[in-house]
Amino acid sequence: MKESQIDNWIQKRNNRRKNINAEDLTTQILTGDIAALATGITLLESTTLSDKVIARKLVDLCLPHAGKSVRLGITGVPGVGKSTFIESFGLYLLSQGKKLAVLAIDPSSAKSGGSILGDKTRMNELSIAENVFIRPSPAGDSLGGVARKTREAILLCEAAGYDFIVIETVGVGQSETAVHSMVDFFLLLMLSGAGDELQGIKRGIMEMADALVITKADGENVRKANQARQEYQNALHLFPPNKNGWIPKVLTCSAYLNNSMDLIFKLIEKYELHTKENQSFHQRRQEQDKFWMHETLKELILSDFFENKTQQKAIQELEQKVTRGEMTSFDAAEKLYSDYKQKLK
Amino acid sequence: MKESQIDNWIQKRNNRRKNINAEDLTTQILTGDIAALATGITLLESTTLSDKVIARKLVDLCLPHAGKSVRLGITGVPGVGKSTFIESFGLYLLSQGKKLAVLAIDPSSAKSGGSILGDKTRMNELSIAENVFIRPSPAGDSLGGVARKTREAILLCEAAGYDFIVIETVGVGQSETAVHSMVDFFLLLMLSGAGDELQGIKRGIMEMADALVITKADGENVRKANQARQEYQNALHLFPPNKNGWIPKVLTCSAYLNNSMDLIFKLIEKYELHTKENQSFHQRRQEQDKFWMHETLKELILSDFFENKTQQKAIQELEQKVTRGEMTSFDAAEKLYSDYKQKLK
Repeated sequence: MKESQIDNWIQKRNNRRKNINAEDLTTQILTGDIAALATGITLLESTTLSDKVIARKLVDLCLPHAGKSVRLGITGVPGVGKSTFIESFGLYLLSQGKKLAVLAIDPSSAKSGGSILGDKTRMNELSIAENVFIRPSPAGDSLGGVARKTREAILLCEAAGYDFIVIETVGVGQSETAVHSMVDFFLLLMLSGAGDELQGIKRGIMEMADALVITKADGENVRKANQARQEYQNALHLFPPNKNGWIPKVLTCSAYLNNSMDLIFKLIEKYELHTKENQSFHQRRQEQDKFWMHETLKELILSDFFENKTQQKAIQELEQKVTRGEMTSFDAAEKLYSDYKQKLK
Repeated sequence: MKESQIDNWIQKRNNRRKNINAEDLTTQILTGDIAALATGITLLESTTLSDKVIARKLVDLCLPHAGKSVRLGITGVPGVGKSTFIESFGLYLLSQGKKLAVLAIDPSSAKSGGSILGDKTRMNELSIAENVFIRPSPAGDSLGGVARKTREAILLCEAAGYDFIVIETVGVGQSETAVHSMVDFFLLLMLSGAGDELQGIKRGIMEMADALVITKADGENVRKANQARQEYQNALHLFPPNKNGWIPKVLTCSAYLNNSMDLIFKLIEKYELHTKENQSFHQRRQEQDKFWMHETLKELILSDFFENKTQQKAIQELEQKVTRGEMTSFDAAEKLYSDYKQKLK
């Protein structure tokens, strides 16, 4: 694209956004209008106050129409083949008559666009298919901010009739935990063979997964992948079960063999059935709603304290005293807090 | 003990506490005086303001003499044989010339005394041995409160010359995570055979452990225990390694065979050597110090908000709206927060 074209495009978009109101946009989103959905999500990500007001209203209006999807979290270290997997699995879902939205969480991405933009160009077929909506990660933000925007984007996508929402994360920082707390089914992609590739996976993540999928199980890799599958399946049996009674499954997959996609889809369907039968599907969502309410509230309260520059300096100083063994952690915390309260008076 | 005896004992203890000052008590603790150590820890647990002032000073005075121990966390579901294990392992440590303190964390215990009091009477030999100090869990408190008291008790025990501190937890609520954040080595006791007993272990705990020990590996159980050991060891290899490079080990043990205790002791020694060589031993402690400073600070800040009765009612109401899908988690959090700020003005 030439500079002039980009300017033109931005101008057009701004014009469109100037004339929007939440009610009209909701109506358009409810008809499944992709452009309206994109505009809606852009509003969610905007830092302009007037946009925020519309965005809030938009979410409120869409909320009663949301919730009717399967939310699928996908994570795995770089190199595991996430975009190839999402491309294949996404195309399979479309072939089953599903409407698919792909969102991403990547708080590490400071640049506009985020990581999935690169992925999107790699998801050649999927990105131009009908009934699919791909959206890069809202960028340059705190995890809390990104999580909020993603959670709200899920609601808009659901209102627009997408019945399968994939949330992808690159697995940096705490983003897997955040994604796990906003999806119905959490899928961990892995390479076959336990070794260096495990270094990239944080401890505790495997125990969160509802399924492990060993990727690149084709050609010479098939034997190794099958062996890994068996080993992981045995291992997972030794670990405490989910409280919803689901025992995580391990599958192998090749992005080239549609057979794998079929099995993964059936597994997720089975999970949906299982958890809807024992009520845990709805329960998990309710717990997630409560979790995010409390998380957000805590963040708001704590930000008053922690975002203050003077406070930050004081924290650093006491942190050093504590790690040098000159003061206990508790005395340091109490001093910081009482100094703060003193200042408020 | 008769009632009159108990009264007499309490009277004596109170008299002793009336005449104490932090300096004298520190001097006594530094000589290894067990009665002084017990009095010190009682002061830590006291809710009286005057006691708190002395306790704070006491901790400050002991701090420079603390830190020279190995802190060992032990957890496992009820029935796994924790007290039998601690009795055997403790006696073994004593035979190696170590001085041992056993502390407990059990925030679920609402009664005075806590769970280990029962354990203590079951630790027949250990509780009357020399060079050992056993202390029940400070009771009827929040996890944060219990954690603080335990962390401070560790410092006093170290100042008194105990070179092995065992922190036991019954594994209720978040107590394993708390214990994991205050020890150098975290040991999970398990029963052989993967089945119902796994139900009691929370997901994520196994990935925290530095070692698994399969208990009751004697008599007919030996074969099953060895098989479980092999399976768990294989499983742990499939999981991401510790960032300190330590691969968790699995051992079997019989409380009747001292051989097991020898192996567990050697394993902990090996871990100590490994982590001291690569600096991660000290680093882990520094991170723990920082963690507790931040945790305590957050707790103090949040308690202003959450302990308010009006606030609690408002939270509950919005929680219901959120779980009924009438409001997003984020809107609810923002409303709670802005209402609160409004009231402060």
